Amino acid sequence: MSDEDTKLNFETMEAGDFKDFAKAMTDYIAEYLENIRDRQVVPSVKPGYLRPLVPEHAPEKAEPWTAVMADIERVVMSGVTHWHSPRFHAYFPTANSYPAIVADMLSGAIACIGFTWIASPACTELEVVMLDWLGQMLGLPDSFLAKSGGEAGGVIQGTASEATLVALLGAKNRTILRVKEKHPEWSETEILSKLVGYCNKQAHSSVERAGLLGGVKLRSLQPDGKRRLRGDTLREAIEEDTRNGLIPFYVVATLGTTSSCAFDALDEIGDVCNEHGVWLHVDAAYAGSAFICPEYRYLMKGVEKADSFNFNPHKWLLVNFDCSALWLKEPRWIIDAFNVDPLYLKHDMQGSAPDYRHWQIPLGRRFRALKLWFVLRLYGVENLQKHIRKHIALAHLFEKLCSADERFEIYEEVTMGLVCFRLKESNEKNEELLRRINGRGKIHLVPSKIDDTYFLRLAICSRFSEESDIHISWEEVKASADDVLKGQ
Amino acid sequence: MSDEDTKLNFETMEAGDFKDFAKAMTDYIAEYLENIRDRQVVPSVKPGYLRPLVPEHAPEKAEPWTAVMADIERVVMSGVTHWHSPRFHAYFPTANSYPAIVADMLSGAIACIGFTWIASPACTELEVVMLDWLGQMLGLPDSFLAKSGGEAGGVIQGTASEATLVALLGAKNRTILRVKEKHPEWSETEILSKLVGYCNKQAHSSVERAGLLGGVKLRSLQPDGKRRLRGDTLREAIEEDTRNGLIPFYVVATLGTTSSCAFDALDEIGDVCNEHGVWLHVDAAYAGSAFICPEYRYLMKGVEKADSFNFNPHKWLLVNFDCSALWLKEPRWIIDAFNVDPLYLKHDMQGSAPDYRHWQIPLGRRFRALKLWFVLRLYGVENLQKHIRKHIALAHLFEKLCSADERFEIYEEVTMGLVCFRLKESNEKNEELLRRINGRGKIHLVPSKIDDTYFLRLAICSRFSEESDIHISWEEVKASADDVLKGQ
Repeated sequence: MSDEDTKLNFETMEAGDFKDFAKAMTDYIAEYLENIRDRQVVPSVKPGYLRPLVPEHAPEKAEPWTAVMADIERVVMSGVTHWHSPRFHAYFPTANSYPAIVADMLSGAIACIGFTWIASPACTELEVVMLDWLGQMLGLPDSFLAKSGGEAGGVIQGTASEATLVALLGAKNRTILRVKEKHPEWSETEILSKLVGYCNKQAHSSVERAGLLGGVKLRSLQPDGKRRLRGDTLREAIEEDTRNGLIPFYVVATLGTTSSCAFDALDEIGDVCNEHGVWLHVDAAYAGSAFICPEYRYLMKGVEKADSFNFNPHKWLLVNFDCSALWLKEPRWIIDAFNVDPLYLKHDMQGSAPDYRHWQIPLGRRFRALKLWFVLRLYGVENLQKHIRKHIALAHLFEKLCSADERFEIYEEVTMGLVCFRLKESNEKNEELLRRINGRGKIHLVPSKIDDTYFLRLAICSRFSEESDIHISWEEVKASADDVLKGQ
Repeated sequence: MSDEDTKLNFETMEAGDFKDFAKAMTDYIAEYLENIRDRQVVPSVKPGYLRPLVPEHAPEKAEPWTAVMADIERVVMSGVTHWHSPRFHAYFPTANSYPAIVADMLSGAIACIGFTWIASPACTELEVVMLDWLGQMLGLPDSFLAKSGGEAGGVIQGTASEATLVALLGAKNRTILRVKEKHPEWSETEILSKLVGYCNKQAHSSVERAGLLGGVKLRSLQPDGKRRLRGDTLREAIEEDTRNGLIPFYVVATLGTTSSCAFDALDEIGDVCNEHGVWLHVDAAYAGSAFICPEYRYLMKGVEKADSFNFNPHKWLLVNFDCSALWLKEPRWIIDAFNVDPLYLKHDMQGSAPDYRHWQIPLGRRFRALKLWFVLRLYGVENLQKHIRKHIALAHLFEKLCSADERFEIYEEVTMGLVCFRLKESNEKNEELLRRINGRGKIHLVPSKIDDTYFLRLAICSRFSEESDIHISWEEVKASADDVLKGQ
């Protein structure tokens, strides 16, 4: 091995450069975010725009960081949709905050893979405690928290999709074991083919996907007139399926659907699940953050009847993606389903602390609890509550402006930071309205459709949003409506 | 809505603070990494150490960032296992580099969720092009690359576990459709119950997990004396199963097993798979990075016969976790298996660019291509090759030191940055050796076991590792062996 090969001295060369680079990036980020309002919210590039802007191959020799920095506007920003602009009202919010960005720097520097306790005790233990902090902030019952001293506790998943799947796998495992006890003569395939789960027809597409992945039937049930899944509907479905020899095992209750932010009747559903010994999973991906404000907890009444509860701090609680919080009353059903235990992952302390690799689909995991810790401390509960209340107030402001224009109707009651609205016209006119709004390029919205009614969704997404921004967004909607209705 | 509620002015208050905080963190990180060698590699904390160090609840009021900064050593670092210390030889390396840390800052600031092209064109397009860059660096055939103009291309997954599962789901979908065409009278459950996949007995535990998750049989096949899965073994298994009415559909070939870094006979396996129309997935999670050096490509001979190829730049290519690169020749099998298409995710450009949400398990995804772009440009191919060659050279150095001590034997041929070794003694003596090595607290190793032979694994993990570090590690091993063998 020659000297030339081994003496790279990346480290001496780099530490100084890194400091310059990271500090320049810090200034760039502050500048970007503070002035994000002035950028065009959706870029006007066409598919394939980027390839001609960069070389065909990776460079052979190292480039200076200043060359990379100089390319960011030209190559990247020219094709970025600015999710944190107050002009962005699509989907649901995704979180972005300065404390979370700094926490991720530290996470990147430590760069441990926290699959077992010993692989980095701090990574596991801060997560255990942060999920207790967060659970208490939401008013979750102690039966979900690690501090209760039992097996219960929280874990950070990548996304709500994964949380739904993990809970489904736990439910599946629990049910198979229970059924086997009663019917030792049944094969696993036989039992599997009888399992059936339930969710609101308005549940997120990831619930359907979890069913596909888990290889089990999932029935989408009809909600009531307010798009809420009700207890009676669920009871009827469970009883019908049971009569037909199926085995109900899993229910997903959605608190805050994606289409229109409707809330399933959790309290009713909880009773039905407990009565029938069915695993109840709560998907509060977006709306869950609002439960840090006591005045919204009525929407999660009955949560103590659930087996698992999930929401995404990375949506509405200023913790950058990915950070999806999942609490489990009985994680053992998941741990046992996944327990593949090679020697190189065993350690002496097994059993005294969670080995989170058994609580999730992937093996590897980053030190994500740091983001939670930084955000919770640097905002404090009070400021996070203010953030939630402000978004909801801004949604009501848009609702008020929209309701005052008699050409429009509000499609769904505004509870959180989402306003569903439409012209009192055909679907086609509303599709035309959306095309015009997005076509003007100033704000960005996406539509949805329920029972053949097409409507527009305006979500309050940015932590920079102020009343004046909402007025601008409303003016954009109004002007587009003028165009659409002109000549009628 | 009162003024007090809505006028938080997070932004004005924060931008300045953020700059101070991020810059202080930058200095802290450089200091941490440059001096990481001096820290105790595995902390001596006991399970439960952290809870008493932090309050029981999240604070009501915001704290200053200096308070958080002051707690990092006390609360976090006291319980961190330092994966980037040259004294850390456990598992496999996980990546950490300055360019990747800065890229993640930018990713955190843009904080888009790239589930569709329109959700942030740059996020999708940079990924497409970076996976082409990377594929070319590895010498992957064009049939895997997007630049070939067909449907093929790469995608960033979170982990190799997810890549194995995604490929399995694609294989499952393809096979079910094919079988249905031939046997329209068979039900899907019937077909599913006949599917069977294959891997080396030494394959990663995540392969077994993917089988569990996908609800299909997976057979672990016996490798040859060098722990390699051979073509003949696979052929026999496939023919046997076919005779018994099963449907072989998926094979995972491992290049660089976790236990001992053995390489399956890909070329032979490829022939068998192609002959039988079975999906071949290559899991090169750790060793794949070495293929950027042409002299190691003989180990992936036959790769053109595979349907999917995966390796983790987040292991050995200096791109921080998570960044697992997966290439698919025919992504349509996965896209179709997953295609759940709600209106709020539709857009006008569908079909002209990949919507990566169909290529993965979760819906959400971060802007991870930035890390690849920064690392590839700021190192250049040459320096990355040097990094790989240096690690391999350091492994050979340890091998040489170990081989020169007649009390020791090398358990497996050293090909990459992993040395598998043991005392020429009983398993118990070797277990005692490991306990002593880790007990002394200076270096950290984990063991493995194959066919009842227990051995120690020394992986070269840190990019700061120098020859002198290897000598220190060897001295630690030798001194521990002296203790174990004393009195014999």
